[in-house]
Amino acid sequence: MGEDLGFSKGLAGVVADATSVSQVQGEDGRLIYRGISIEELAEKSTYEECVYFSLYGKMPTKNQLTKFNTELRHNRVLPKAVEAVIAAAPRSAHPMAVLQAAVAAMGFDEQPVNLKNEDANIHNAIKIISQLATAVAHISRDRRGLSHIPPNTEMSHAENFLYMLHGKVPNKEEARIFDVALILHLDHDFNASTFSARVVASTEAKLSLSISAAIGALSGPLHGGANEKVLEMADGIGAPEHAKEWVLNAIATKAKVMGFGHRVYRTMDPRAKVLRGMLEKLVATKSDKSTYETLRIVHDTMIEELGKTSKDYIWPNVDFWSGSLYRLMDIDSIDFTPIFAVSRVAGWSSHIIEMWRDNRIYRPSAKYVGPTDAKYQDIKNRK
Amino acid sequence: MGEDLGFSKGLAGVVADATSVSQVQGEDGRLIYRGISIEELAEKSTYEECVYFSLYGKMPTKNQLTKFNTELRHNRVLPKAVEAVIAAAPRSAHPMAVLQAAVAAMGFDEQPVNLKNEDANIHNAIKIISQLATAVAHISRDRRGLSHIPPNTEMSHAENFLYMLHGKVPNKEEARIFDVALILHLDHDFNASTFSARVVASTEAKLSLSISAAIGALSGPLHGGANEKVLEMADGIGAPEHAKEWVLNAIATKAKVMGFGHRVYRTMDPRAKVLRGMLEKLVATKSDKSTYETLRIVHDTMIEELGKTSKDYIWPNVDFWSGSLYRLMDIDSIDFTPIFAVSRVAGWSSHIIEMWRDNRIYRPSAKYVGPTDAKYQDIKNRK
Ligand SMILES: CC(C)(COP(=O)(O)OP(=O)(O)OC[C@H]1O[C@@H](n2cnc3c(N)ncnc32)[C@H](O)[C@@H]1OP(=O)(O)O)[C@@H](O)C(=O)NCCC(=O)NCCS
Ligand SMILES: CC(C)(COP(=O)(O)OP(=O)(O)OC[C@H]1O[C@@H](n2cnc3c(N)ncnc32)[C@H](O)[C@@H]1OP(=O)(O)O)[C@@H](O)C(=O)NCCC(=O)NCCS
Repeated sequence: MGEDLGFSKGLAGVVADATSVSQVQGEDGRLIYRGISIEELAEKSTYEECVYFSLYGKMPTKNQLTKFNTELRHNRVLPKAVEAVIAAAPRSAHPMAVLQAAVAAMGFDEQPVNLKNEDANIHNAIKIISQLATAVAHISRDRRGLSHIPPNTEMSHAENFLYMLHGKVPNKEEARIFDVALILHLDHDFNASTFSARVVASTEAKLSLSISAAIGALSGPLHGGANEKVLEMADGIGAPEHAKEWVLNAIATKAKVMGFGHRVYRTMDPRAKVLRGMLEKLVATKSDKSTYETLRIVHDTMIEELGKTSKDYIWPNVDFWSGSLYRLMDIDSIDFTPIFAVSRVAGWSSHIIEMWRDNRIYRPSAKYVGPTDAKYQDIKNRK
Repeated sequence: MGEDLGFSKGLAGVVADATSVSQVQGEDGRLIYRGISIEELAEKSTYEECVYFSLYGKMPTKNQLTKFNTELRHNRVLPKAVEAVIAAAPRSAHPMAVLQAAVAAMGFDEQPVNLKNEDANIHNAIKIISQLATAVAHISRDRRGLSHIPPNTEMSHAENFLYMLHGKVPNKEEARIFDVALILHLDHDFNASTFSARVVASTEAKLSLSISAAIGALSGPLHGGANEKVLEMADGIGAPEHAKEWVLNAIATKAKVMGFGHRVYRTMDPRAKVLRGMLEKLVATKSDKSTYETLRIVHDTMIEELGKTSKDYIWPNVDFWSGSLYRLMDIDSIDFTPIFAVSRVAGWSSHIIEMWRDNRIYRPSAKYVGPTDAKYQDIKNRK
């Protein structure tokens, strides 16, 4: 970032608060949720269990998990006003904008926050986590001109989401792959959307309005929007045989390659590794491997070429492989970022609930670089 | 803020970026927009001129102002989808939640951002500034069970807003007072909502989605929501003769007094002074002076009592007087925070447009305080 500004642009390296929800260990390429590595959670846990863990700070007992699942499942139906907001969107609308509006609508009748009533805030979070998945599925079906599939209370979060999206019950393997993808996206310390959620909630704004704001941040192409862009890039490249040349040209022209780079990781993003492992298994069962092949060559060429430079910060991130995985599950690329939100909403909520225990409004300082003593000029004298 | 955390809680005093949009000079109780003091702007300028100044960085010539006004006036009608989102809200909905959803809906068909096309981004901002005022008026009328008043292209921003709100053309004096209130709320360096707007927009999220997020932050009772709370407080006190005792009790029980306190000011907020001056003139023309009288006693008692302590940071802020002024204009207190947004949207937009010239995603660090090496336990073994 060139010249010394006297402050850290983008708050890089500036500690914005304490948290125990998750930790990104950038040098080691490790990510933990409340102390447990995501590799272990991806292998042994479920999304629901991780959500409970994230919100409550401990793993549920059998009884707790049963109650929690019941609550999550019975909150899936959307309130009428949220349905109406979704219905207001034209089919051309970007689903992230519709989702942001829909989640704001979850706040229409939300009571003002009471920071001291953590229990009420957690139950509110569970409702939002549950409804957000339904909203994403309904928004997607509206865009495709299909009727909504009402949620099913017998299914897990992952299964039910795929069912509402596709209108058919997913097979066990795909449901589990999707469940793991949800686990991997759940939290990532102070990424831009979580940080947005915190800043908004630090004013004691309502939970749904804070989550709605975070959806705005996630929509940006530098953040969650990158997973959609990765597939646009793959489609633009067209076929595996053009991938290498495309990357060499991108590097030469200093174009950004989507799905690469990270503020904190100085090596491979651990989520990218787990995702790739699942993707390779899934791709082996499919006939059309071209998107995967194209991205594999982009990936390998980037690592090979950048390995020749000193750029230790341009490694693949979570958004590089998630899109190919979702495409193999017949999901449109425009729905990838909303699906990121289906998972991350649990992280946003956990951070807000943790922060509210000892809240202080986020109100940083500015370095003023304008004139300090200008005078108002009559309009006749202006040029 | 008690113990030393090793970081600055709420990013107090941490420089988050450079700006030339405005500067809060906390020690002197001074506020400048691009170098001109708000007292001078409040006296000589108009909201429209200040918006131009804020967005473009220079005061408009006569021709530029005419063109700008035409653009602002001809963008007032809401798109159908935004109307439909507003119509989706029940009358019980808080108007800030509805506004957040409505502004997200302005993003339904917004093109992805091109940071290099500043001109397009400014025109988009002008559209949002224009439409946000209409949205606030329509939302208010829906809540009151009244039909919408279509915007009028012959009127100024302030006049037209009051006209759409009340269904009658305001007199010149009230329109000018409201215009000045809009000027005073336009910008305030890195307050929490502006900072939210910046964080969200730093991901290259769309302008309307970033503004929608900022509305969430403004809704919080620690931020813009305070102006509504000030009037709730006055109403709770009931009558001027109870005000002194109420304040003494609040101080004794360490209750927060809404409309007091600020992260940056260490003396009277200059906006509070200008507002009070206008308020006193207006109140002289009205028969019901009780809200003003109650708040005047709260104000004077707070300053007297806190003057006896070392607390140099609890002075009245902008939210203390704005509500009484609006009430005298027959505006419901629940509409005060949305009206704050009618003005501040110009500041949010100006900050985003400035930031995009040299953008870097906001992604701070976290101090991790949880366990680092936990293991996944089988559910049977959990307690
Ligand atoms: C994620 C990201 C926003 C991190 O931003 P950051 O920490 O501010 O890093 P910077 O933008 O300052 O990048 C540092 C350097 O790496 C380069 N760089 C970063 N990401 C790059 C990418 N994806 N492709 C090519 N070069 C990249 C920058 O151009 C810059 O080069 P320079 O030092 O020669 O000027 C950034 O890497 C990016 O935009 N990646 C693409 C979008 C993406 O995949 N986002 C998802 C993140 S989970
Ligand atoms: C504006 C505000 C959020 C600034 O927050 P901040 O910079 O983090 O300040 P803090 O909350 O740390 O306050 C510092 C001290 O002043 C006290 N204080 C701050 N605002 C106070 C108020 N309105 N009434 C009484 N005490 C107040 C705090 O209790 C704290 O006391 P302590 O040092 O004894 O613990 C805060 O003053 C506030 O909540 N004000 C009321 C809401 C309001 O009017 N907001 C509109 C702002 S434009």
